[in-house]
Amino acid sequence: MKKLLNDPSDYVDESLAGLELAHPDIYRRAAASPRVVTRAKPIRPGKVGVVSGGGSGHLPTFTGFVGQGLLDACSIGNVFAGPSVDDCVEAMREANGGAGVLRLYGNYGGDRMNFDMAGEMLEMEGIETTTVLAADDIASAGPDEWRKRRGVAGLILAYKTTGAKAEQDGATLAEVTEVARKTTEATATIGVGLTSCIVPEAGKPTFAIGADEIEMGIGIHGEPGIWRGPLRPADALAGEMVERLLADTAMAGGERVAVLVNSLGATPLEELYILHRVVASELKAKGITIGFVRVGRYATSMEMAGASISFLRLDRELEGLLRAPATCPFWSNEP
Amino acid sequence: MKKLLNDPSDYVDESLAGLELAHPDIYRRAAASPRVVTRAKPIRPGKVGVVSGGGSGHLPTFTGFVGQGLLDACSIGNVFAGPSVDDCVEAMREANGGAGVLRLYGNYGGDRMNFDMAGEMLEMEGIETTTVLAADDIASAGPDEWRKRRGVAGLILAYKTTGAKAEQDGATLAEVTEVARKTTEATATIGVGLTSCIVPEAGKPTFAIGADEIEMGIGIHGEPGIWRGPLRPADALAGEMVERLLADTAMAGGERVAVLVNSLGATPLEELYILHRVVASELKAKGITIGFVRVGRYATSMEMAGASISFLRLDRELEGLLRAPATCPFWSNEP
Repeated sequence: MKKLLNDPSDYVDESLAGLELAHPDIYRRAAASPRVVTRAKPIRPGKVGVVSGGGSGHLPTFTGFVGQGLLDACSIGNVFAGPSVDDCVEAMREANGGAGVLRLYGNYGGDRMNFDMAGEMLEMEGIETTTVLAADDIASAGPDEWRKRRGVAGLILAYKTTGAKAEQDGATLAEVTEVARKTTEATATIGVGLTSCIVPEAGKPTFAIGADEIEMGIGIHGEPGIWRGPLRPADALAGEMVERLLADTAMAGGERVAVLVNSLGATPLEELYILHRVVASELKAKGITIGFVRVGRYATSMEMAGASISFLRLDRELEGLLRAPATCPFWSNEP
Repeated sequence: MKKLLNDPSDYVDESLAGLELAHPDIYRRAAASPRVVTRAKPIRPGKVGVVSGGGSGHLPTFTGFVGQGLLDACSIGNVFAGPSVDDCVEAMREANGGAGVLRLYGNYGGDRMNFDMAGEMLEMEGIETTTVLAADDIASAGPDEWRKRRGVAGLILAYKTTGAKAEQDGATLAEVTEVARKTTEATATIGVGLTSCIVPEAGKPTFAIGADEIEMGIGIHGEPGIWRGPLRPADALAGEMVERLLADTAMAGGERVAVLVNSLGATPLEELYILHRVVASELKAKGITIGFVRVGRYATSMEMAGASISFLRLDRELEGLLRAPATCPFWSNEP
């Protein structure tokens, strides 16, 4: 297993310790649990808290997106395993500024169960909470069953819009929740996987895939996609991904879209930009304007090779919130 | 070959096309050559130009660091091959605001030859130029022969200090050059490689390395390092890297240092932070204060697994320049 680690069972805690040591002005691990990361400074009284969480192994998702204009706190599980109920409770307590707390995370059964249970406990403490799930992976269920979809890289765009809304003076829990709902419902993602990652405690690839084989529609834990077949040229793959996203979202000429081209880990920036060429030209040909774009590693599966493309249909509010400044090592405030 | 590409001979140009399409407010390919990337806006008259260049396959190095507070222009070669003389000339012309142009790049024979020739041509056009070479890889030559060292990830810290200095009103070519010189001479880097990358036009791994084997001191093109041996725990590797850097730089208690923990590509953030834990604790034990830190993918070898650690001995000026704001997709202005 070619990973830079010590005891595999220490992978997550050592990694979080390093994160806090590297960025002490951004992140703080909660006193109550090393698996809860909050902002370095306590939440502003009256601010709606935005909390997320999920398994480790996806950095900078989820934890990395704690920061000003993004998340207030995050609960973290083992690699590819959901956070504990206690840690979800603790993350929400940390994010409680008296104006309620939104739980915004990916649609996975274990995470839902634990976050829901934690939410009930918070309600008993008199803290109002809401839930919005990211369910953007179009390969995981059809458009009529979109609520069953898994949450993947599109979640990051929801972090950004929701986090920006929550920074606005006087924004209410209902308003922040509505931005999250609107963003997640307008987001669609599809991924393509080239290699498996290695979960440290397993010590071997999560799934087998042939030397020239790829999987269209793969999930960020290696969940099966739509088809497996031989590697095709990047333009053909990107073309198919764009076509599937356009068909799913029924986006039409004259609309504006945010684009996220995301590496699943090992795939280099050079190749993401090769894909983005196709995204840009296909959208232009359809008369759809790219209003916002990010290319890089946002939601990974450690060293998995592959990429995903996300589209978020924009309205004026969402576009403004995407462009609002944020402070976090994994977000650049380019124009 | 598991890469997302089309014809391997189009890898670089398609990638640069995507870069420009994704970030049109940051980057512009020069009219005279698609292998020269400049800032979207022409250089401010009277500003010293800072130019770099090198082979492709290291994104975000070199091209990605064109931006406000960083580089003015960059000439790009094929994967792991230096830029042409013509493109070096063109990059310097684009970066000429009438106050001279600094060439700041890594110490590789081909790049030197072409940049020197280009510099002579510019001088004939009446444009004053200077050169500073990054030579930070301590594995590539001993401290007494440090000028023979290769330039690796430490170059990015020099981009940052030099680029920030060049933004200051009235900064002269001599002053900007001096900041670059001071930064490069105070920077030391060591890398460890776990796997090879694949050069697109070669289509196979650049070098063979056993399934449990690693190479300490590897270069960013796979150049041989100090030793090859079985993979060790991350703490042992990071400990050795820190020890080698401290021995080379003779840094002592009471000093301040900037730290860059860099992935060579596939190695995920989780593992970089595991390494950073060790860096932080070893430096603390020595009484050395970390004044600035970045962890992420700054100088890669496409999908190579491995990491490097760079130290830059700080003085007040360099620390301030590192913290100055910059605008570029690959730089976050965290505190």
